[in-house]
Amino acid sequence: MIDPRGQEALTGAAQSEIFQILRDGTPRTRSELATLTGLARSTVAARVDALLRVNLLAPVADAASTGGRPSRQFAFDGTRHAVLGVDIGATHVHLALTDLHGTKLDDIQEELAVAEGPDIILGWVIEHGTRLLQQHSDRVTLRAVGVGLPGPVEHTTGRPVDPPIMPGWANFDVPGVLRQSLGVPIYVDYDVNVMALGEHHDYWSDVADLLFVKVASGIGAGVIVGGRVHRGAQGVAGDIGHIWVPEADGVECRCGSLGCLEAIAAGPAIAAKLRARGADVNGTADIIAAVRRGDIDAVREVREAGRIIGRVLTTCVSLINPAVIVLGGALANAGDHLLAGAREVIYTRSTALATGSLQIVRSRGKQDAAVSGASAMAIQHVLSVESVEAMVRVDA
Amino acid sequence: MIDPRGQEALTGAAQSEIFQILRDGTPRTRSELATLTGLARSTVAARVDALLRVNLLAPVADAASTGGRPSRQFAFDGTRHAVLGVDIGATHVHLALTDLHGTKLDDIQEELAVAEGPDIILGWVIEHGTRLLQQHSDRVTLRAVGVGLPGPVEHTTGRPVDPPIMPGWANFDVPGVLRQSLGVPIYVDYDVNVMALGEHHDYWSDVADLLFVKVASGIGAGVIVGGRVHRGAQGVAGDIGHIWVPEADGVECRCGSLGCLEAIAAGPAIAAKLRARGADVNGTADIIAAVRRGDIDAVREVREAGRIIGRVLTTCVSLINPAVIVLGGALANAGDHLLAGAREVIYTRSTALATGSLQIVRSRGKQDAAVSGASAMAIQHVLSVESVEAMVRVDA
Repeated sequence: MIDPRGQEALTGAAQSEIFQILRDGTPRTRSELATLTGLARSTVAARVDALLRVNLLAPVADAASTGGRPSRQFAFDGTRHAVLGVDIGATHVHLALTDLHGTKLDDIQEELAVAEGPDIILGWVIEHGTRLLQQHSDRVTLRAVGVGLPGPVEHTTGRPVDPPIMPGWANFDVPGVLRQSLGVPIYVDYDVNVMALGEHHDYWSDVADLLFVKVASGIGAGVIVGGRVHRGAQGVAGDIGHIWVPEADGVECRCGSLGCLEAIAAGPAIAAKLRARGADVNGTADIIAAVRRGDIDAVREVREAGRIIGRVLTTCVSLINPAVIVLGGALANAGDHLLAGAREVIYTRSTALATGSLQIVRSRGKQDAAVSGASAMAIQHVLSVESVEAMVRVDA
Repeated sequence: MIDPRGQEALTGAAQSEIFQILRDGTPRTRSELATLTGLARSTVAARVDALLRVNLLAPVADAASTGGRPSRQFAFDGTRHAVLGVDIGATHVHLALTDLHGTKLDDIQEELAVAEGPDIILGWVIEHGTRLLQQHSDRVTLRAVGVGLPGPVEHTTGRPVDPPIMPGWANFDVPGVLRQSLGVPIYVDYDVNVMALGEHHDYWSDVADLLFVKVASGIGAGVIVGGRVHRGAQGVAGDIGHIWVPEADGVECRCGSLGCLEAIAAGPAIAAKLRARGADVNGTADIIAAVRRGDIDAVREVREAGRIIGRVLTTCVSLINPAVIVLGGALANAGDHLLAGAREVIYTRSTALATGSLQIVRSRGKQDAAVSGASAMAIQHVLSVESVEAMVRVDA
């Protein structure tokens, strides 16, 4: 009466507890693991041997003996495997090779426009990724690749959906192409989700609920709820750039609708406002330069964009009551002006209960938030129950 | 080196898999359970005996023999234990006794204003709850009580926080008082969370993300994310009634702020608008009566309230991308007018991706949504790993 696949999965789940317990880094003996899990000692011994064979565990120097022959201890060892984190931005590509503890072994980046199309961009990733791997092949084996793209991605297939700034990428088989050359599982996600995961993993892992808002040539959010990326029913949770706002009433957005938040508060809209005042500002980079040299108009418009975004975020604060809002992306990273505008509105307009201990901060990962998040996403997958089971099965 | 509490909890977790596996209702033999969990056979046998002793398992008639002596099968039995669901509304109290399968054994309700204060209301709950239990004491043992209150509740203590319509209830020890008389664990939550849980549990358990919006004398939301009630960092997630909206600019809210959603779109605000037109409408009940007799002004104002609420919900849709929005509470239950207004705005203003398969519906549980949700909340706790462990330990 039992579905054989369900049976196998559950057997794995109970045995996998051994590895999931050891992931905390604490060394333990076989006997301690048997007590902790309630599993038979023979099961524990076989499992520890299997994890040693695939280099996910390592024996640890014996603990101080309490009399008698000391038992051997084992601990998680993530130094023999690696993941490749890939941040594909609007105008750059950034690769990092890290081990399973998240330690960066090497990285490389280049100015390259995503609009060049998937052949050129993914060709660059494969060429430089392969070179990085060759340089470190004596130490680590590649286990997975995590990729952040600057547009929405269908979660189940890893293919870009409807990407306004990514001509040629719509429905392109990004995971298939990378897997063919790199030979490992490929995980692809919208860069806002990847950045949210990276900021949470690296700086805010003690909070459960975090909202990451990217403000650059577009506006989007990554939503962390209960410590995990929340995707929603159609996988488009966090798509706040196309919320209708009264300030943008009648203004056309690049998505084809009227009145979207990003049609009034993202880089191109701010640049257009500054050009209307006679400034020579053509894109987000020019706005950042103007802000950095203290141009009053530029500072005022970025702060006003922060206020408009802040009005939308007050509703987000009431709905999900996050512990932290992290503002990232090029416009948020250019000084404190966007942050100041958002804080002004959120702290004024939200309820005292919801903002009593709410932190609103700039991204700490900054330019590395996306590549670090892409690596964290890949590591999460490699250390999951299913992936560890697969490694053990292939080895057996 | 091992924390003894951690060790006990983990041992429990592995053994508890046996009960959590059997919760699906499928009968299984001891041998099947050993295979499914990877636990030692002696562990499984002891565990099954313990669960039989506390009446959470029952032996099932032997399955068709495949030759040889058939092994005995066991399945989850929830008919010997009960929970009390308590819905304390603004003007009523409703009690229901159900078994752990969610089958209602008995219920009772009465018109009673929450403003009478905790002594009178909780006194009624204890008196009538005790009577219901006595009538069914030969069949079931009470294991827990779930309570929904018409205002925010501090999750860790179960005490009401800042309840505008509940004079005398602020910080009152609701769980302590009920526990003293009823002698079981008491779980208390804001009724919007309880109603969201009940609607999800009873009608939408196949979707992960659901937003329940209650529109009555106030406005609040229960947020289900990944199948669980989402509370947020301070436990005030879903508090959408006090979001600032331009339509309410300058209007004073009962919370003391200006411009809150519920200051323009909840029962008292609609009643005030109708009174300003000369109608004799003093509260939510009068609005519902006017709508039911087809009063044009009342229908128009309820529909307009639906539009204003809908504008706030478009942001919620973009942020969390729910599969379903359920509109409940007295004003949503009075015909389709509020629903129609909300749908009009949400389907017009939200992105196609987020609304492609979004359902916006009226509460199906209606008046029973809260009591049913309160029972579901209590059952979830009784069948949790910790609670089952506690029952087994007390019995041992």
